[in-house]
Amino acid sequence: MSAMSETVPAAPHAAVTAVAGGPFLRNTWYVAAWSHELPPGALLARTIAGEALVLWRTASGSIAALEDRCCHRQAPLSCGRVEADGLRCGYHGLKFAPDGRCIEVPGLDRVPPAARVRRYAVVEHRRWVMVWLGDVDAADPTRLPDNHACDSPDWRYRPGYLHYDTPVELIADNLLDFSHLSYVHAGTLGGSDRIAAIRPTVQDLPDGVRVERHVPAVPPPAYYRPLWPYDGLIDRWIRYDFLLPGVLLMDSGAQPAGLTADEAAQRGVGVRFRSCQAITPETASSTHYFFMEAHRADRGDETVTEGLYQGLLAAFAEDRAMITAQWHNLQRTPGRPMLPLAMDAALVRYRACLAQALAREGR
Amino acid sequence: MSAMSETVPAAPHAAVTAVAGGPFLRNTWYVAAWSHELPPGALLARTIAGEALVLWRTASGSIAALEDRCCHRQAPLSCGRVEADGLRCGYHGLKFAPDGRCIEVPGLDRVPPAARVRRYAVVEHRRWVMVWLGDVDAADPTRLPDNHACDSPDWRYRPGYLHYDTPVELIADNLLDFSHLSYVHAGTLGGSDRIAAIRPTVQDLPDGVRVERHVPAVPPPAYYRPLWPYDGLIDRWIRYDFLLPGVLLMDSGAQPAGLTADEAAQRGVGVRFRSCQAITPETASSTHYFFMEAHRADRGDETVTEGLYQGLLAAFAEDRAMITAQWHNLQRTPGRPMLPLAMDAALVRYRACLAQALAREGR
Amino acid sequence: MSAMSETVPAAPHAAVTAVAGGPFLRNTWYVAAWSHELPPGALLARTIAGEALVLWRTASGSIAALEDRCCHRQAPLSCGRVEADGLRCGYHGLKFAPDGRCIEVPGLDRVPPAARVRRYAVVEHRRWVMVWLGDVDAADPTRLPDNHACDSPDWRYRPGYLHYDTPVELIADNLLDFSHLSYVHAGTLGGSDRIAAIRPTVQDLPDGVRVERHVPAVPPPAYYRPLWPYDGLIDRWIRYDFLLPGVLLMDSGAQPAGLTADEAAQRGVGVRFRSCQAITPETASSTHYFFMEAHRADRGDETVTEGLYQGLLAAFAEDRAMITAQWHNLQRTPGRPMLPLAMDAALVRYRACLAQALAREGR
Repeated sequence: MSAMSETVPAAPHAAVTAVAGGPFLRNTWYVAAWSHELPPGALLARTIAGEALVLWRTASGSIAALEDRCCHRQAPLSCGRVEADGLRCGYHGLKFAPDGRCIEVPGLDRVPPAARVRRYAVVEHRRWVMVWLGDVDAADPTRLPDNHACDSPDWRYRPGYLHYDTPVELIADNLLDFSHLSYVHAGTLGGSDRIAAIRPTVQDLPDGVRVERHVPAVPPPAYYRPLWPYDGLIDRWIRYDFLLPGVLLMDSGAQPAGLTADEAAQRGVGVRFRSCQAITPETASSTHYFFMEAHRADRGDETVTEGLYQGLLAAFAEDRAMITAQWHNLQRTPGRPMLPLAMDAALVRYRACLAQALAREGR
Repeated sequence: MSAMSETVPAAPHAAVTAVAGGPFLRNTWYVAAWSHELPPGALLARTIAGEALVLWRTASGSIAALEDRCCHRQAPLSCGRVEADGLRCGYHGLKFAPDGRCIEVPGLDRVPPAARVRRYAVVEHRRWVMVWLGDVDAADPTRLPDNHACDSPDWRYRPGYLHYDTPVELIADNLLDFSHLSYVHAGTLGGSDRIAAIRPTVQDLPDGVRVERHVPAVPPPAYYRPLWPYDGLIDRWIRYDFLLPGVLLMDSGAQPAGLTADEAAQRGVGVRFRSCQAITPETASSTHYFFMEAHRADRGDETVTEGLYQGLLAAFAEDRAMITAQWHNLQRTPGRPMLPLAMDAALVRYRACLAQALAREGR
Repeated sequence: MSAMSETVPAAPHAAVTAVAGGPFLRNTWYVAAWSHELPPGALLARTIAGEALVLWRTASGSIAALEDRCCHRQAPLSCGRVEADGLRCGYHGLKFAPDGRCIEVPGLDRVPPAARVRRYAVVEHRRWVMVWLGDVDAADPTRLPDNHACDSPDWRYRPGYLHYDTPVELIADNLLDFSHLSYVHAGTLGGSDRIAAIRPTVQDLPDGVRVERHVPAVPPPAYYRPLWPYDGLIDRWIRYDFLLPGVLLMDSGAQPAGLTADEAAQRGVGVRFRSCQAITPETASSTHYFFMEAHRADRGDETVTEGLYQGLLAAFAEDRAMITAQWHNLQRTPGRPMLPLAMDAALVRYRACLAQALAREGR
C-alpha cells in the first residue's frame, strides 16, 4: 500500500464547504424516467431541477414533455388524461398538443393564442427518457451519454430507482469516492478495508472525470454471490466515467487472485459488470436516482439477475441512509468547513468541472 | 352551443394572479360547526380565519364561543372542562363565564379584573353554528344566510364536512365555475362534456353572485342513481347564489329531456335538490368545508339519503384532490399569471365583490 | 385556606411573555442519558442544546462524548462503530480517539493535525450520564447535582424518559407550579382541588428555588394505590429543589390525616418518595425529559415499582399533552402577554435566577 499525500493540494472552495442544492445546469440532458414508466395512456409527473414536468407517450409512440401546469388556473396537467391528439387538463378541460399549444377550450370556438404551456425537448435513449432543460432549439442529441448497456442483448439487468431527500451534489460526492465501499458497504459491495487503502487514478475528461481502481487479493464481496459463489481471494477492478450532469458509466469485475482477466474468461470464472447510473436533481434538496448494474446475458439466469438487483438495492439503501444523515448534519449547522483529504481527489475535480460548466451558462 | 367571447373582458388583477390566503372579512358570519358537533358537555376547538376558538353548549342550551387561550399561561381552554356556570381551564383551573370573564382563580379570593378572554358573537341558525369574527356589538342577525333547507321537514340530508389543506379562495373559484363538472366529476356529478360547453348566466348580487345554467339533453350523472335510476336523456338545471364570506345556496334538478319541470313533478319523475354549503377559512392555507345536498323528504327513504351523501362525498373528494394539486403548483412558483377565460366570469365577479367588501373593512 | 395576594408583585418581563427556546447555559452539567443507554459497543446520538453529540462507553468503562460530525465530510460519527481504541466513522473510515483526535485515515500514513473533532467533558454520576457543554477545562465536578436516590440501596425505581416537542422553559414552568396537579392530574397524581388552593412556600437558592407545600386532609391520589391502597383522608407534603439548568430533586409523602410522619412510619402506613428529574434542551423547541420517582426499597416488590412507574408515565403524558397544546398556542400568536398570578411565584423566581446565570455567561 503506497502512502498518499495527506491532503488534496489545491482543494477548491466548493469541495471544502460542500456546496449543495444547486444551481443546476440547464443546457444538458437529464434522465427523467425509465422507458417502462411511460406505458401508453399513462401520465407521469416528474420534477426536474425544480421544474414540474408531465410526460406521456403520444399516439406515434414518441415521448412528449410539457410543463405540468395548465396555463388557465395552474392545475397540474398530470391530473388530466391522454387523448389521441394530446393531453386534456382534468380541471376545466383545456386540451394541449405535444408541442404545448392549447388546441381546445370547452365553450370557446377559438382558442386564445396565449393559451400554451412550455414544452421540453425529450428523447427516449436506450431505455432512458432524457429531458433537455434548456431551450428546445439548443437540445443536442450528440451529447447523449453512452449508456448502450441499458439496451443490449449482451447484458441483463433489472432497472432500479431510488428517491433521495438530499441534494444531488452529496450523492455525486459519494459516487466519486469509492473508498466508502470499505465502510458503508462492508457487508454488501465492499468486504475489505483494502478498497479504501488503495489509491485510485483520476483523470480529467472534457465533461467529467475518469476513475480507476485495482484492488488485489481481497475476499469477494457478498454482492457477487448470486453470480459467482467463490470463497478464495480475488483481484478486483473498477473503472468509471462520472459525467455532467450526473451520469456514471462503469465497467467493473474480478477474477481469482493472480489470474489475468483473459485467463479468467477462458476458464469461465470471475465476474464482469456494466453499470449505468444517473442522479437527477428533483429540487434543491431531493434527487432521483436511476440505476442498473448488468451482468453478461450468457452467464446466469433470471434468479441471478434478481439476486444481483436485490443486492444492489440493499447497498444503495446503505448509501442513502449515510448521505441522508450527512445532509441532516449539514443542515443543522450550515457553513461548517470540511477537511479535504487525498481520497477526495475525484470529487474535487468533478466539482471544479461542474463549476466551469455552470460558469459557461452564466449561473 | 353558442360561442363565447374568448377571454373575460375586464378581468381584474385578483383573478389573474389567483390571490389566495386572505385577508379575510371580519364583520361577517362564518359557519363554525354543525349543531350536532356540540352535544352538552363537549368542548369544540375550531380555528376560524387564524383565530383559535373554543365552543360549547351552556346549561341554557345556547352556544358560547371564547378565544381558545387562557389569559394566564395561554393553554387552550378546549383542554379544560365544561362546568355548570362556565368553562374551567385544564391547566391551573381558572374558570370563565360564557361572556369571557374569569370567575374563579384557585387560591385567590378575588379575581383580578384583567383576567378575561375574548368572546365571540355566536348563533345557532338552522343547524349551522355561526360565528361573527368582528366586534360583538356589530354582530347583525339580519345578515344570516337563508339556509332554511338545513332545517325543514320538506328536505332530507346527511350533513357533511371536509377539511382542506388549501386556501379558501381556491375552493370558492371551484364552486363558481361548474364547467369543472364535465372533467373533475365525469363519473360522479357530471357525466357529459356539454356542461362545460354551455354558457351560464351570471348576475351580480349585493353580497355575491347568482349563477344559472341549463343543460339540455344529456345523460344523467351517476350521482342521481340512488334517487332516480333513469337511463334516458335529461334536461338539467342548476341555479345558485354564492355569497360572502363563502356560502353557496343552490336549487338544482333534472327531468326527462323535453318535459317541463311541472310535467315531471306531476308524473313523479326527475330529481330536485337543495344544497347549502359553506367554506370557512381555518388559516391562510386551510379551510373548513360544511356541506349538504337535500332531496325532497317525500321521495326516497334513508337508503336514498345515505346513497346521495356517499355520492356527494366521493365527488367532493375529487374536488379536493384537484384543488390541492393546484395549490401545490401555486406554491411551487408563486406569482405566475393565470390566463383568464370566459368560463371564469362568475369567479372574477365574486372576487371583485370580495375585494370591495374587504376595502370597506379597510383590509 | 388563606387568601393570596392576587398577582405576583414584581413579575419580571420574562414571566409575562413566557420566553421560550433559549438561550441556554453552557457552563453547566446537563443530563444526557441514563447509564443503561450506553451498553458496551453502542453508539448513542443525542442532541443537547442544539449540539449533536455521540456518546459511547470506552474499553475502560468510562463514557466518551464527541461532536457527532466527522471533520472530513460531516457524516454523523454515530453511524460508525466502536473499536477498541476509539470510534470509526462509517462513511470513509476515519478513526477518532475518545479525546477527539483522529488517529487513522484510510490510505494515509500520517494523519493531518487538523483532523479532530470537538470533545465534551462527560461523567457518569449515579446512573445519570452528564455532559458539560462549555469548555472542557471549566467542567466542575463539585457542581454535579445531589441525585443520590438514583443509585441507593434504600430506594427502588424504574428509570423513565419522555421526549417533548416543546421548549424546555415551558416544562420548567410546569414543574415549578404544582397547582396543576389538581387539574392536569385530577385522576392520577392529584385527586383534590385543594392542592391548587394551598399556598406553597418558595425560597431562593443560589442556583434555583426551593418549594414546599403541605396539603392536609385530602383523598389519596390514584397514583399511590400500588404502594398504599388507603381510602381515608391523608395529609400530603411535597418539598423540592428546582436547580439550574433544569434538575428537580424532590422529597414527598403522605400519611393518614392527623398522624405525624413519625407516627405513620412507626405504624408502617403512609408513603414516601424520592424523585430525581431532569429536563435537558434538545433544540430550541424540543426537550429530553429524564425522570424517576423511587419508593423505599423495604416497602413493596417489583410489581409495586412497576405500578408506580406506569402511574407516573401516565401522569407525565398528561403534562406533555397540555404543554404541547400550550406551545402550539404560543407559536400561533407569538408575543401575546401572559397574566401573572400568585401561583406563578416559584417560576418567576426561577426564571429570574436563570436570567442572572445567562447574564453571567454573557448570553
